[in-house]
Amino acid sequence: MTEKEEITEANQRFYSAFETLDIEQMRSAWDEEYDVTCVHPGWPLIQGRGEVLQSWANIFTNTMVMQFTITEASVVVEGDWAWVVCTEGLRSVVDGRVTEGKIEATNVFRKRGERWLLVHHHGSPVM
Amino acid sequence: MTEKEEITEANQRFYSAFETLDIEQMRSAWDEEYDVTCVHPGWPLIQGRGEVLQSWANIFTNTMVMQFTITEASVVVEGDWAWVVCTEGLRSVVDGRVTEGKIEATNVFRKRGERWLLVHHHGSPVM
Repeated sequence: MTEKEEITEANQRFYSAFETLDIEQMRSAWDEEYDVTCVHPGWPLIQGRGEVLQSWANIFTNTMVMQFTITEASVVVEGDWAWVVCTEGLRSVVDGRVTEGKIEATNVFRKRGERWLLVHHHGSPVM
Repeated sequence: MTEKEEITEANQRFYSAFETLDIEQMRSAWDEEYDVTCVHPGWPLIQGRGEVLQSWANIFTNTMVMQFTITEASVVVEGDWAWVVCTEGLRSVVDGRVTEGKIEATNVFRKRGERWLLVHHHGSPVM
């Protein structure tokens, strides 16, 4: 597998964790040492692993269905860092309401041993 | 100057270009070789230098005043790549309407010779 394929797989793993709404899967997608950051669509910046994982737990509590179709626009690897720009085609059921739409995302990863882990996720709604 | 200070300066140069609404300054802030990408708040992804610069020209045409207060949350340098997560405190006059608000931004830079140039800007509105 090339490094770019490894990054694409790590990116897909993040979205799989989101789709299964499983906080343990989401926890294992994020880096444990780096001071991670996250911007959910329309939200202010969240800093720190504890706060970021709590935000995912809150989202999962209110979400019944989350389905993604991901289109990668660019995947760049430099040493132990990588970043992906992608478009999330999204169908979700949140608080009983069905929503379909598009989210633009920037995801930054760091390599730890053999694994690429998320250090920053930035999603923004296309209005 | 440390590399992190260089990145912070490049980040500030980008926002200065935005404040002056000068398309030539904005042009010189972006990389010329890399296939650059840009997400304006609420917009879909824009790809390619020509399209990205055209989007800035369109924004500048409709904007009378743009003032930023930038707070950097993190600045990471790895080889010839760097990325900044920051919060834009924003006051603008667009189409005659005054707006104040906050934008979360992820900015990715690439070093060309002695200069750090933007390859990706992602801004999202805090609602």
